[in-house]
Amino acid sequence: AGLPDIQARPDVRGVALDAVGVKGLRHPLTLHGDHGQQPVVATLAMTVGLPAASKGTHMSRFIEVLEARPAIVGQAGMRTLVYAMLARLDASSGCIEMSFPYFVRKTAPVSGTSSLLDYDIAWRGEVDADGIYRFRMRVTVPVTSLCPCSKEISAYGAHNQRSLITIEAELREAMAIEDLIALAERNASCEVYGLLKRPDEKYVTERAYDNPKFVEDLVRDVALALQREPRVGAYRVEAENFESIHNHSAYARIARPAAAA
Amino acid sequence: AGLPDIQARPDVRGVALDAVGVKGLRHPLTLHGDHGQQPVVATLAMTVGLPAASKGTHMSRFIEVLEARPAIVGQAGMRTLVYAMLARLDASSGCIEMSFPYFVRKTAPVSGTSSLLDYDIAWRGEVDADGIYRFRMRVTVPVTSLCPCSKEISAYGAHNQRSLITIEAELREAMAIEDLIALAERNASCEVYGLLKRPDEKYVTERAYDNPKFVEDLVRDVALALQREPRVGAYRVEAENFESIHNHSAYARIARPAAAA
Amino acid sequence: AGLPDIQARPDVRGVALDAVGVKGLRHPLTLHGDHGQQPVVATLAMTVGLPAASKGTHMSRFIEVLEARPAIVGQAGMRTLVYAMLARLDASSGCIEMSFPYFVRKTAPVSGTSSLLDYDIAWRGEVDADGIYRFRMRVTVPVTSLCPCSKEISAYGAHNQRSLITIEAELREAMAIEDLIALAERNASCEVYGLLKRPDEKYVTERAYDNPKFVEDLVRDVALALQREPRVGAYRVEAENFESIHNHSAYARIARPAAAA
Amino acid sequence: AGLPDIQARPDVRGVALDAVGVKGLRHPLTLHGDHGQQPVVATLAMTVGLPAASKGTHMSRFIEVLEARPAIVGQAGMRTLVYAMLARLDASSGCIEMSFPYFVRKTAPVSGTSSLLDYDIAWRGEVDADGIYRFRMRVTVPVTSLCPCSKEISAYGAHNQRSLITIEAELREAMAIEDLIALAERNASCEVYGLLKRPDEKYVTERAYDNPKFVEDLVRDVALALQREPRVGAYRVEAENFESIHNHSAYARIARPAAAA
Repeated sequence: AGLPDIQARPDVRGVALDAVGVKGLRHPLTLHGDHGQQPVVATLAMTVGLPAASKGTHMSRFIEVLEARPAIVGQAGMRTLVYAMLARLDASSGCIEMSFPYFVRKTAPVSGTSSLLDYDIAWRGEVDADGIYRFRMRVTVPVTSLCPCSKEISAYGAHNQRSLITIEAELREAMAIEDLIALAERNASCEVYGLLKRPDEKYVTERAYDNPKFVEDLVRDVALALQREPRVGAYRVEAENFESIHNHSAYARIARPAAAA
Repeated sequence: AGLPDIQARPDVRGVALDAVGVKGLRHPLTLHGDHGQQPVVATLAMTVGLPAASKGTHMSRFIEVLEARPAIVGQAGMRTLVYAMLARLDASSGCIEMSFPYFVRKTAPVSGTSSLLDYDIAWRGEVDADGIYRFRMRVTVPVTSLCPCSKEISAYGAHNQRSLITIEAELREAMAIEDLIALAERNASCEVYGLLKRPDEKYVTERAYDNPKFVEDLVRDVALALQREPRVGAYRVEAENFESIHNHSAYARIARPAAAA
Repeated sequence: AGLPDIQARPDVRGVALDAVGVKGLRHPLTLHGDHGQQPVVATLAMTVGLPAASKGTHMSRFIEVLEARPAIVGQAGMRTLVYAMLARLDASSGCIEMSFPYFVRKTAPVSGTSSLLDYDIAWRGEVDADGIYRFRMRVTVPVTSLCPCSKEISAYGAHNQRSLITIEAELREAMAIEDLIALAERNASCEVYGLLKRPDEKYVTERAYDNPKFVEDLVRDVALALQREPRVGAYRVEAENFESIHNHSAYARIARPAAAA
Repeated sequence: AGLPDIQARPDVRGVALDAVGVKGLRHPLTLHGDHGQQPVVATLAMTVGLPAASKGTHMSRFIEVLEARPAIVGQAGMRTLVYAMLARLDASSGCIEMSFPYFVRKTAPVSGTSSLLDYDIAWRGEVDADGIYRFRMRVTVPVTSLCPCSKEISAYGAHNQRSLITIEAELREAMAIEDLIALAERNASCEVYGLLKRPDEKYVTERAYDNPKFVEDLVRDVALALQREPRVGAYRVEAENFESIHNHSAYARIARPAAAA
């Protein structure tokens, strides 16, 4: 264009950047997975490492990478997208993180009524400074937790509440979002649903009461299930209970490095 | 199911409810408009009025209404959806509000490069206590504002920043989301874009400098344009400048009742 | 300063502004009330009406008004602050809204242990276009709600959750924040606390189970209590239950104009 | 109380927890520092490690630790508070993080007018699994950034915007919040202020134009300043520019381990 390219000028400060790029970028995509395709609205952060000798990156190229690709992305496609970004930005390391609401059709436990439930998901593909590509998936899963202490000490009833179980897992191979969600849901006091008829409501009430769990139990039981899951390497599991008897949360966390393969 | 229906019991307190229903419900929909279809992730509030004599509403029916309908919704479809809710809930007044991120493909002003820009939109369909149906649309439009005072008093430069113009308009007839967005963008110091090449960046920099606007100017100029728009009845326009020289916003608002038709 | 005052120039568009000023401004204050003084961190919006003939307001003067006053404010002081703003901005209408977290020391129901609980409060003082001053207080109160339907249809247990009751009330005379909070808390299934020992946890669990309330019951019972409160004029009460069996909220609202005095 | 203590029972799953405790807890404190005392409203997370053999922690004791201490806390006091928590919870590792808005009185550059500016601060005191205590401070500092590319390629003007510089630093010794803030502000295109008169607005406009910085420049210049600061060990610096010509942010990050002492 004849206009000077300031970003391409040399830099003399001798300071490399771990990450530079765009953040808070919303973009529509179609996720491709084992359970078909789903349109999602993703919020993206796209960054690359920048050598000490470069004055700046070219911000518009991140958007070009997104705009140039077909908008259908699977877990394999994330890797392709990350390497396309590295190529376009002339970088050797970089990361794309996209977070999005995701919907799963669930069936109510007694009536069999069908409805959607929403989850917050994030996919992160990263090529580190050593050139290694890693893919991590994070699922945030709403569940019911019922307090074992409250149940045991009370003549009747037990306080319960909505909880969020968050799993962030490095995947050794592709894994459906639905599978990681189910792993969390199976280990709660009870699952939650979009639509419950009265017989369902009776079921989930009694199911939670029969299955009390501390926030510590949630993360321990999820961690044990993750240990048995061959597709998962390193992971971190957190649970946050929005206590119905307090105005703060109970919280627990377990992080584990990848076991030897 | 043989289970008692507590909500259907009579209530003796003599207090009617203006609104009761579900809130914070995320649901995927496909918007149908003049510019084609777009999948969106909506956050919904669905409520109905409840007479004094009724103990409670039936929360699961709101979800049933959503699940029972085709997921493709236009502005006429909103009306159908609201009346379907009233019928299912046996109510005479009620409201559905759905807010969602929405994407418009824009063309950079010099290079002609194409990219998406995201906007926050809300549609609200309501049957009031008098049985009147009204439809309101809200668009929140990011723009550039450049301070006329800073420009005039400074030897060079002028502080500028991202601003949000929010229009909430009662529509007399269907109006494309894109039309209400464009009305806001035309009246800013400059539009914003997802992707700008260097010649575009030169253009938007100089365009904003040539077209300085106070937050007061933004709402006045948008209000004047709304006055000339026959599809718009009552409206409220707000602008918030995320001042680049402060850590707070400059803000302005104009609200006008519907002019006589 | 010899610099031109652009804002003071005339405007020929003929459009008056309902509100112009600053928003999202954080400022430390000391609240003065019946229960002593409490330092708070307020987020303020300060606006005035602007006649059609004026090009702009003077944004820095809003901050001057805040900085010039003693930082100790009570409900009477809000009126003084609003009129000081009108005088400094040479305006005939205007509004100051300040929202802030507020702490109340509570006593656990059995052990008597003392702890703080946090609430979100807003004060709004406004002089309208007719020159009438009104003061509104909003309190957002976390409570426990326990579902009557779940209790009745289930063999044991009942789903319960944290709820937020929000009261926005126009006050005819000064009213302690604590009094409006207590009005909400008394009408929930149970209050929540910062610190509960085991005998307290047993108490609140059983208390909620003995006192089931739909979201409709919460707003009705609070509305009835507000009707009996002579210090309250017009009001709006909302309740939102963060359902422990869903990932969305149940919601209800009642708004009433001021009764004849 | 004669009630069973479920949490104290043994656990046989063999899974230790990295962290368990309370989160999202708001509590008023008075910060004690070099520049005097300041009341703050903190949001706290308090956690301890839990051995595999323990069923659960005692959540109420976290609140007791807070309630039992004087509410005046400095950086040395954080260490005391963390060890008090470990003692009360019978734990060998643990962490307290408190984040809070903080106010600094600033002087406008020309008029000398005084006003407060708000910053988001976090203090984190942690005893890790090896029994080492570390203290980290995070400051999030609003500044002005002006784009060097926009300035160079445009005939006049330059896009600028509010940016946030976030420094998270492990401190080797106590360091005033104000000192870490100033380190960020000195390296921006210009500082921001609460209150600016017209001569000040002229100054900051011209100052930013004379001192253009990419988001890369912001983090590089702050990183160089941190390297020269003997009180700082490991650090991470991030900058996010809320671009006035886009609806997304430009972002950069540098993280460095502690240099050898």
